[in-house]
Amino acid sequence: MAMYKAPLRDMQFVLNEVFEADKLWASMEATQEIDASLAESILEEGAKLTENELFPLNLSGDAEGCRFEGGQVFTPKGFKEAYQTLSDGGWMGLGGNPEYGGQGMPKMLTVLFEEMLYSSNAAFTLYPALNNGATLLLDSHATEAVKTQYLPPMYEGRWIGTMCLTETQAGTDLGLISTKAEPKGDGVYDLTGSKLWITGGEHDLAENIIHLVLARLPDAPAGTRGISLFLVPKFKVNADNSLGEFNKVNCGSIEHKMGIKGSATCVINFDGSEGIMIGEPNRGLNAMFTMMNYERLSIGIQGLGLGEVAYQSAMDFSKERIQSRAPGGAKQPTKAADPILVHPDVRRMALNVRAFNEASRAFASYVGMQLDIGKYHADEAIRKHGDDMMALMTPIAKAFITDRGFDATVTAQQIYGGSGYCTEWGGEQYVRDARIAQIYEGTNGIQALDLMGRKVFSNRGEYVKSFTQEVRDFLATCADLPNMQVWTTTLETELQRLESLTLKVIAATEQNPAEIGAASVDYLDLFGLVAYGYMWARMVSVAQRKVGSETSGFYASKIKVGNHFLKRILPRTLALEQQVLAGAEVLMAMEEDDFYVN
Amino acid sequence: MAMYKAPLRDMQFVLNEVFEADKLWASMEATQEIDASLAESILEEGAKLTENELFPLNLSGDAEGCRFEGGQVFTPKGFKEAYQTLSDGGWMGLGGNPEYGGQGMPKMLTVLFEEMLYSSNAAFTLYPALNNGATLLLDSHATEAVKTQYLPPMYEGRWIGTMCLTETQAGTDLGLISTKAEPKGDGVYDLTGSKLWITGGEHDLAENIIHLVLARLPDAPAGTRGISLFLVPKFKVNADNSLGEFNKVNCGSIEHKMGIKGSATCVINFDGSEGIMIGEPNRGLNAMFTMMNYERLSIGIQGLGLGEVAYQSAMDFSKERIQSRAPGGAKQPTKAADPILVHPDVRRMALNVRAFNEASRAFASYVGMQLDIGKYHADEAIRKHGDDMMALMTPIAKAFITDRGFDATVTAQQIYGGSGYCTEWGGEQYVRDARIAQIYEGTNGIQALDLMGRKVFSNRGEYVKSFTQEVRDFLATCADLPNMQVWTTTLETELQRLESLTLKVIAATEQNPAEIGAASVDYLDLFGLVAYGYMWARMVSVAQRKVGSETSGFYASKIKVGNHFLKRILPRTLALEQQVLAGAEVLMAMEEDDFYVN
Repeated sequence: MAMYKAPLRDMQFVLNEVFEADKLWASMEATQEIDASLAESILEEGAKLTENELFPLNLSGDAEGCRFEGGQVFTPKGFKEAYQTLSDGGWMGLGGNPEYGGQGMPKMLTVLFEEMLYSSNAAFTLYPALNNGATLLLDSHATEAVKTQYLPPMYEGRWIGTMCLTETQAGTDLGLISTKAEPKGDGVYDLTGSKLWITGGEHDLAENIIHLVLARLPDAPAGTRGISLFLVPKFKVNADNSLGEFNKVNCGSIEHKMGIKGSATCVINFDGSEGIMIGEPNRGLNAMFTMMNYERLSIGIQGLGLGEVAYQSAMDFSKERIQSRAPGGAKQPTKAADPILVHPDVRRMALNVRAFNEASRAFASYVGMQLDIGKYHADEAIRKHGDDMMALMTPIAKAFITDRGFDATVTAQQIYGGSGYCTEWGGEQYVRDARIAQIYEGTNGIQALDLMGRKVFSNRGEYVKSFTQEVRDFLATCADLPNMQVWTTTLETELQRLESLTLKVIAATEQNPAEIGAASVDYLDLFGLVAYGYMWARMVSVAQRKVGSETSGFYASKIKVGNHFLKRILPRTLALEQQVLAGAEVLMAMEEDDFYVN
Repeated sequence: MAMYKAPLRDMQFVLNEVFEADKLWASMEATQEIDASLAESILEEGAKLTENELFPLNLSGDAEGCRFEGGQVFTPKGFKEAYQTLSDGGWMGLGGNPEYGGQGMPKMLTVLFEEMLYSSNAAFTLYPALNNGATLLLDSHATEAVKTQYLPPMYEGRWIGTMCLTETQAGTDLGLISTKAEPKGDGVYDLTGSKLWITGGEHDLAENIIHLVLARLPDAPAGTRGISLFLVPKFKVNADNSLGEFNKVNCGSIEHKMGIKGSATCVINFDGSEGIMIGEPNRGLNAMFTMMNYERLSIGIQGLGLGEVAYQSAMDFSKERIQSRAPGGAKQPTKAADPILVHPDVRRMALNVRAFNEASRAFASYVGMQLDIGKYHADEAIRKHGDDMMALMTPIAKAFITDRGFDATVTAQQIYGGSGYCTEWGGEQYVRDARIAQIYEGTNGIQALDLMGRKVFSNRGEYVKSFTQEVRDFLATCADLPNMQVWTTTLETELQRLESLTLKVIAATEQNPAEIGAASVDYLDLFGLVAYGYMWARMVSVAQRKVGSETSGFYASKIKVGNHFLKRILPRTLALEQQVLAGAEVLMAMEEDDFYVN
């Protein structure tokens, strides 16, 4: 059946053994008070919360879904109580700014708790995930007065944030939005317009909903340079922080979707709703990117979380399922058949899932670490490297983790056989819930354009060079480990492939701007594989130092799963390289009309 | 929105231009009366039926699903009437034996009609698809008396067949089935046992349901060599062919599934139900393979059909959707944005889907042609080649078409952006409906084992050699076409890769039986790509001869989509080759316990 145990051992491995978080935290003023034992107890408590409170609501939340009645949205049974428990425990402010009541935990730690949230109940988790991004945005761009008024109740979970970007005619292309903001004086604006696909736009979990809304001032220029950002609460907030009258923020309907059915996806109509501006006029998209970048990593982790719970559930099924005999003859001759994990192809599927899940976990924490370094480190050069890696890796974290996370749920479903297709086993829900992560928060195609265009072409591969240097520096530290030689050699080949391909795409783009979009998705996939190769090299090197004479157990398995990645997954770069090199011409040759069916 | 037009032009291209069906039909006695104009009118009528009667019930059938009440199953609104229309039109016996009222149409034609059925309504189509397999089985293995009694009403659609194999403990491993058949004398048996996941096991479409059931005689040996096959009707059939009393065939429940919700997936309990044996005692699995092989190709076509309708619907969406500007500057400056097909990455997705759909269509017809040749051709050597190719290609047709069909639905869904995740647009249903095709009718992993074990290793690559020879013979006919040179060169490389890999896996398997399962899925994928490369070469060569000076339209597009396959898809073999060469050791190294979560 569906099962979930937070992978605490692996999380501690990533945090303490692979990235030595303790040392990093001690070296930065903002994180000096955090140590491994505090991190451990947070993760242990997080495990209890997600396993015991959220996971039991996952299947039932999917079956029941959200209900829209008389303009109100009702979340599935149990969600309200679970949300209260989460809020009461201080979890809504885990990564929040301590000056306003947040817990101030570093990102490389909070990503691990986020993974638990998504594993246990992805639909539920979107409510706090949006709030986290909204508070981060306010903390970065709002005035002191706004922060003092809004952040404490949002960190407490009494109020909860949303992100209102999309309109019917404006999805990927935010330059097309038409929601209007009319100044009323005193820094107050009247907002009018309709927003689509607003996650948690309306629900029954919190006493107030704080919408962060992109809209246009009356004199705004067309396109993305004429977009401003507004805070629009569902209920107005009085000077004493008590709730005032309804702010004419109406939910028009909720979507019927493939999955994440417990998450309310709303049409939100602002009918002359009062708002205040956050940040500068016409620079709203810039401010919104603080939230979007946060959500992109978070949604990446949705992919990982679902891949992890899908793996665990499939293994729980495999343990009990006996079918056919091992290739070399019966392993359990007293039973009618052998457990299905005796079959090489079932192992191939399980190892594929695991090799990606474990690398994704390390990678999410790695990206979180870069964010912490970029924010807190005293050394400017180190801080810059952190910022650069964060910028480079965010689109990969969003797209590659969710693409491989979706694959993981599909592969795990396959391990079940027919039971994977039946609702009661849970495996099919993970596929449906994971699918959206490739689409929302900027489709994975858009992430790839961001990588190829803004993060690679714009700086002519500068970030890529910093990354390959970092990997080479790490590999140099493994010279004393004879069993790492194969990793060093293989990764050096892959780094050269990535560098050479990067230069070729840059050169081609200088001739033809269509080359960016022609290369982007395959390039991102290739980059993701190399980045995961780096994660695996770091994990395997630690395991090799610690495994001793053991042939099973944690470290021995880590080495074996890593070997599977090296031998059976990393070669995918061979194909991706050729696909990128095929270039734009092949794609652009067709007449547009010849695509359509007449 | 969701849309479907049967791709008649492409079907005629495959049938008449690529495979020159007319010539083949004229050369075989059984098909002499069939010509291109008859085939064309069948396809045109089939298009009307599927577009107008079945497609309108697709979304609603998914939303409503089947209903189980008081032991009875009710199909969604409209299914019963549509089934009646299908039956009245003679479509249920389209490929049936004319001696018993079938239409006798060749397989290479009926696969095209099957594609239309699956495109328009996959859940509905499973009812006739099972009947087709059941009648084929009876035609091949039943006595004259049984055929005379059962085939006419089944070809008429008044009675409808099912396939009862799986039991709770016996899915992939049919040797474990425990349903009992007790002889009662006079060739009648009492069947007792419970069957799981019986597609169309109970429903309201037809007046009788004819179950083909695997069960064990009292003295049967254990395992697959002790399985016999029985015909068990829901209502007993009197000597005058009228329906008699209820035969104690009870539906215990129906499954709640990810998709194909209009198809009733039943637990069927035989509670001392009377049956007659089909074929020899203890040779039931052998007879059942006639039906299973039929269904495997049919389920392959489910993948294609859903890939096709997903493509069409996504393109219908793309036509209207404008978002952002083309890389080189506005294409439609008077509008707020350009149609999304100006973007290279959207084209990449559309071309990926189309390159697989069109190759799958040709491949399904090619496999159907081998079946026709194996059955009807007068020349023994040609007949044998047809049989061999049919045997070799059936697992590829089932697994590769459904894997790429699933990918096609997922990619098409991605083209929609957020609308792809919302139920009303139809795109997400195709993903859910396509997913099962990779699982049932023998999981795709089992297909790969069949290919690698029975079709490659057992005969030491003999079929593979016949196939590569056929491809080389074809390529030799293209020597006069200068633009085919790149195809000839590339495919020759791929044929050598396939041959060399085949020999290596055979050699490795002689040392270690686990190598079959370690290689199987990646080997099948590689084989599928080479086979599709062959299909594309055949299609492109025809298009090159006919395109003249045209730069758009049918033939020009065919050449361009083929080029996309050659440059951006076929290179996947590079990775697959390395994955196969990694061998069994990597997979078998992990301790079984280290897979499980404790």
